[in-house]
Amino acid sequence: MNNNQIDKKETKYKDALIKYSVNIGKGTRGPNNTITDVEGVRVGHYTLSEDHIQTGITAILPHGDNLFKEKLTAATYVMNGFGKSIGLMQIDELGTIETPILMTNTLSVGRVATGLVRYMLEQNDDIGVSAGSVNPVVCECNDGYINAIRELPIKEEDVFKAIENCAIDFEQGAVGAGTGMMTYGLKGGIGSSSRLVEFGDKTYTVGVLVLSNFGNLSTLQIEGHKIGDLIKYEIEHEEKGSMIAVLATDLPLSERQLKRTLKRIPAGMARTGAHFGNGSGDVFFGFSTARRINYRETDDIISIQVINENLIDRVFNAAIKATEEAILNSMFYAQTTVGREGRCVKSITEYDELLRAEFT
Amino acid sequence: MNNNQIDKKETKYKDALIKYSVNIGKGTRGPNNTITDVEGVRVGHYTLSEDHIQTGITAILPHGDNLFKEKLTAATYVMNGFGKSIGLMQIDELGTIETPILMTNTLSVGRVATGLVRYMLEQNDDIGVSAGSVNPVVCECNDGYINAIRELPIKEEDVFKAIENCAIDFEQGAVGAGTGMMTYGLKGGIGSSSRLVEFGDKTYTVGVLVLSNFGNLSTLQIEGHKIGDLIKYEIEHEEKGSMIAVLATDLPLSERQLKRTLKRIPAGMARTGAHFGNGSGDVFFGFSTARRINYRETDDIISIQVINENLIDRVFNAAIKATEEAILNSMFYAQTTVGREGRCVKSITEYDELLRAEFT
Amino acid sequence: MNNNQIDKKETKYKDALIKYSVNIGKGTRGPNNTITDVEGVRVGHYTLSEDHIQTGITAILPHGDNLFKEKLTAATYVMNGFGKSIGLMQIDELGTIETPILMTNTLSVGRVATGLVRYMLEQNDDIGVSAGSVNPVVCECNDGYINAIRELPIKEEDVFKAIENCAIDFEQGAVGAGTGMMTYGLKGGIGSSSRLVEFGDKTYTVGVLVLSNFGNLSTLQIEGHKIGDLIKYEIEHEEKGSMIAVLATDLPLSERQLKRTLKRIPAGMARTGAHFGNGSGDVFFGFSTARRINYRETDDIISIQVINENLIDRVFNAAIKATEEAILNSMFYAQTTVGREGRCVKSITEYDELLRAEFT
Amino acid sequence: MNNNQIDKKETKYKDALIKYSVNIGKGTRGPNNTITDVEGVRVGHYTLSEDHIQTGITAILPHGDNLFKEKLTAATYVMNGFGKSIGLMQIDELGTIETPILMTNTLSVGRVATGLVRYMLEQNDDIGVSAGSVNPVVCECNDGYINAIRELPIKEEDVFKAIENCAIDFEQGAVGAGTGMMTYGLKGGIGSSSRLVEFGDKTYTVGVLVLSNFGNLSTLQIEGHKIGDLIKYEIEHEEKGSMIAVLATDLPLSERQLKRTLKRIPAGMARTGAHFGNGSGDVFFGFSTARRINYRETDDIISIQVINENLIDRVFNAAIKATEEAILNSMFYAQTTVGREGRCVKSITEYDELLRAEFT
Repeated sequence: MNNNQIDKKETKYKDALIKYSVNIGKGTRGPNNTITDVEGVRVGHYTLSEDHIQTGITAILPHGDNLFKEKLTAATYVMNGFGKSIGLMQIDELGTIETPILMTNTLSVGRVATGLVRYMLEQNDDIGVSAGSVNPVVCECNDGYINAIRELPIKEEDVFKAIENCAIDFEQGAVGAGTGMMTYGLKGGIGSSSRLVEFGDKTYTVGVLVLSNFGNLSTLQIEGHKIGDLIKYEIEHEEKGSMIAVLATDLPLSERQLKRTLKRIPAGMARTGAHFGNGSGDVFFGFSTARRINYRETDDIISIQVINENLIDRVFNAAIKATEEAILNSMFYAQTTVGREGRCVKSITEYDELLRAEFT
Repeated sequence: MNNNQIDKKETKYKDALIKYSVNIGKGTRGPNNTITDVEGVRVGHYTLSEDHIQTGITAILPHGDNLFKEKLTAATYVMNGFGKSIGLMQIDELGTIETPILMTNTLSVGRVATGLVRYMLEQNDDIGVSAGSVNPVVCECNDGYINAIRELPIKEEDVFKAIENCAIDFEQGAVGAGTGMMTYGLKGGIGSSSRLVEFGDKTYTVGVLVLSNFGNLSTLQIEGHKIGDLIKYEIEHEEKGSMIAVLATDLPLSERQLKRTLKRIPAGMARTGAHFGNGSGDVFFGFSTARRINYRETDDIISIQVINENLIDRVFNAAIKATEEAILNSMFYAQTTVGREGRCVKSITEYDELLRAEFT
Repeated sequence: MNNNQIDKKETKYKDALIKYSVNIGKGTRGPNNTITDVEGVRVGHYTLSEDHIQTGITAILPHGDNLFKEKLTAATYVMNGFGKSIGLMQIDELGTIETPILMTNTLSVGRVATGLVRYMLEQNDDIGVSAGSVNPVVCECNDGYINAIRELPIKEEDVFKAIENCAIDFEQGAVGAGTGMMTYGLKGGIGSSSRLVEFGDKTYTVGVLVLSNFGNLSTLQIEGHKIGDLIKYEIEHEEKGSMIAVLATDLPLSERQLKRTLKRIPAGMARTGAHFGNGSGDVFFGFSTARRINYRETDDIISIQVINENLIDRVFNAAIKATEEAILNSMFYAQTTVGREGRCVKSITEYDELLRAEFT
Repeated sequence: MNNNQIDKKETKYKDALIKYSVNIGKGTRGPNNTITDVEGVRVGHYTLSEDHIQTGITAILPHGDNLFKEKLTAATYVMNGFGKSIGLMQIDELGTIETPILMTNTLSVGRVATGLVRYMLEQNDDIGVSAGSVNPVVCECNDGYINAIRELPIKEEDVFKAIENCAIDFEQGAVGAGTGMMTYGLKGGIGSSSRLVEFGDKTYTVGVLVLSNFGNLSTLQIEGHKIGDLIKYEIEHEEKGSMIAVLATDLPLSERQLKRTLKRIPAGMARTGAHFGNGSGDVFFGFSTARRINYRETDDIISIQVINENLIDRVFNAAIKATEEAILNSMFYAQTTVGREGRCVKSITEYDELLRAEFT
């Protein structure tokens, strides 16, 4: 299996959208145009790509220190709860996140959760002794179209590899949890994008990473161009996919402000043609790195920062644009993939000529 | 380890409450006074009770056939989301349950979820191939006070044993997931109770099963008697526990009617002295066995039944009473248990004399 | 004031979208392409349009009989709760609606609610005596840009006029509650559309009516065409508007199925360019006419129908398309309007030439 | 009508509970044992008590300055949404309150909302011109058992009188919105209580005010004493009432922390015997006076305070105790009242002898 030392995938489609002169929104991108533009955030993959096994794990580390001991403000929003992600309930109750966020295939959520618990126990010898328990956050999409999901190829231990691989630079497309995912009938998976926003005299970053696995080809549009209609493609799937989005920011958003922002993520999806079908579990997580919440806080009253609510449209717009572009990136970075039963999911980049004609 | 063939625990406290002339509410109990009075429901335990390991799994089978292929109407209600139970999101979205409900300790949720997925895959060869994925429901409390929870003693395979043990007759108290739990500073765990309600000319059953792990001794009350104050007990814990409740009924409640009913479960808890502390994850599940939902339904429009909303107070009252009694049963059935570091959690039945004096 | 006997507004833009060959979605429209294609539903306006007063009331009658005595299944969904609509809480709790749905300007919600209560008292002499109280549903957008909203020109009695005007045929655009509303910086207001869906061997209708009052001109798009960019228009407003949508159907949707459908309404909005700004209160109501719920039901158990959830995408798609078209209709039917301080909001139809060039 | 200059009702039952040696919880009360112990909070009534008209308005001013221009952090929680209170949606979305909180009878919500809007317009000449609109908060219970609620005796103008009457000292029992309310089959209405909590080296206050209108006599209990069973009283009502609670604190609780606290209010109700019947609309509001939110905030990032979540049980306990005592105060302060059709609702104080025997 070619995980960990994945051959660098061809990156000619890096900045693919820019190549085609597709300008998603007018906001300013961060330096990497990924979620890791938010300082401290790192992303790592563990990929299983061999014959009928096309799956993996993607890990997002919200910061580089001990997250259980220094929690972050967080929120969730469920657009469509037809999914099996875990960890949402406690985030909603307490407004905090205390583990990395892991993504994998639907049936591997339990194994990845246990792997994450074991990772947290290793890092924290007081969990389960004097510090209560820990709330693992694991989200999923179903890659069963090309992955032999019933074989449960992911092991608990694989979580450690995904976390170890975390870095500022990370691959997009058919890697990690995105290895077997499909977007608008074409190859999708992991995509990311970022936008800069100004508050006060400082520049902050809103980053989005998606695990994109939804949509029918016929409804795909890129900046208003009905690309789906143009691509002659044999297979039309009934939408039964899902999308996970994780939004990170160094802006001091409260958990309520984060949730309001997450509620705008479907607007970014809709701009690419999403119809939010019954079977699509669309689940979003957000966190702010602005404040570390000491799990053994000694002060009774704590001073924190939040943004002026009157200015929150800046964040909404950044989130919508970054989501739209992250979805498209998940497609433009993904290579054609063949999986179980010889099923082939084509990359959108195979339609290079058509795209050039449309956009340039 | 003495699981599966647990020596029948002393059942002299069966009907303990009746012995003390404590009459919890005025409703009529079902024949077993347990959740299995609801036809088709069965409960089974897998218990690990040896020295520092005091934990287990409890399984509830909502009906005896293939639950994935014949789903049931279901709902959840989160009183306090400081917990790690999984499966709620999809129940809320679709109003259905498609797996047994499993209970275990907090850090074993992932393993038990995977075990449950493997059980479902065994039962259904179309999951992950042509029938989408499956939503495992696993809930938890933290038994870390007397259980060495960090050792993750539960294995994926143990789920099969708990499910195999499912029967109409089942033990209560310190068994299964309840093995290491603590209620009002005394030994708690699994408790159950049922109430009969009349609708039309038929008698229906509302059954409740709790995994009870909450409360400070000083606030315990039984039918208004402040028992907690009477018991001289050395250890007073800060409430950091949780309670899981599962409500079953053969009444045709809609998912909304089920959720309204679950919202009354805290009233049953409050009657025993609950204060709903910050750290207590109180999470409730409900299902109705009245209708089987064919996962490959061929009709476009389906006829179902619901109860007349004007009469729902009958269900609310039954749920409150059954919850109150189930909590007390979890205590009265539980024997004194010694766990990690020699920690001893006493059974309330050790205060036999005091209880007799108060109630008879 | 020219209410009640409003001069028939020019209807040359009736079927305006069709004129421009704009085909919103591929579904089949109902005969009127309005919410009243759902049998029994009627809509009426009361319009105040004179100088600085540009406001009114729009009433939707879900059926033609006594709605308090024969309630309907209903649901709500709040995309953005920055609004003052009332009646949602009880709809969410009970899953029913028991009054007509009224729309007006933000500051008149109280008067319209009282007018609606008085209407209900007239119709039902047992309300407040033996039948409990009644839950008026009144929703709103803020027409303060061209309407002197502080003068509270709406009177309680005006509610009766709007209800009396209810009919299958009704005007769209700058009428009733839509009189002073603004959409994408142009004139908006009341718009409606419908789609037919097949279930079993029957044809059902999904109808949507919007009170449209949101959006910045620059983001307006029609079927992917960036019309907003094309229109040279002097005023660019920061989005502070709102949108109310009411969805009606004769399909037997449960309250949960209705709510899931309402959650797709933002996708219809997004397709026209919505950004869901902070100040935009976006609130949606849905009801099904399939079942009458007798307020003094004598049966304990009731038989009802719901749709097969596996087929709900048909309803989702119909709702998205009807919403998108209803918003555009609210604009294409609305004439240029001058209000307080001489402020002029132009109709999109003033850009006839530009639209013809773009679409034909 | 004897409003505004109500004869001082007999206050011999002031501190009634203390007289009977009923000690509700062990916390420390504030100096007035009312919600106005929270600095800046004031309460005022407008009472209509004459023959068949037994109703009124109660106003709570969260602070003494312009609340629209200096909003407060706020939250709501709906235990049972069978009610018609308004203003919740925007509080939930924005986490702020911008008007006084008014209480009245169910059918008068619209009039009181309009009165409150007019009051806000008087205070703020920019509302509806340059400052958007305003979100009136009005809550209600149904006093129709002894009040001729269909006559809509409350006028918009009466709101001004209730607000003018606001003071630190205010009456409890059958006054203001509580004039016609009934609790556990006995006379109820307005009740209040407060508890002091220590955070850091400062003492803060949690105050609760209830509009209490729920419960069947048979289930009434006071500190575990089943008083309801003892009172021989002819009328047993099916519970169809409601309870509104408003919680105020000078602790810097975030909106999420406030909502968690409000979720514990039913525990206080349950301790008095509440069963949370179908028809009982139980709706709770909370606000913190710790921070003024400038409606035209000029800073992009704002510093605020919140409490250490690990200590929130102090607040939960204070809320539960204050709620329990506020409900009992609403009964002990209320005098026997005769209303429409000569219906008489007795004060619990008529059972003086019985109460003395039980408690002293």
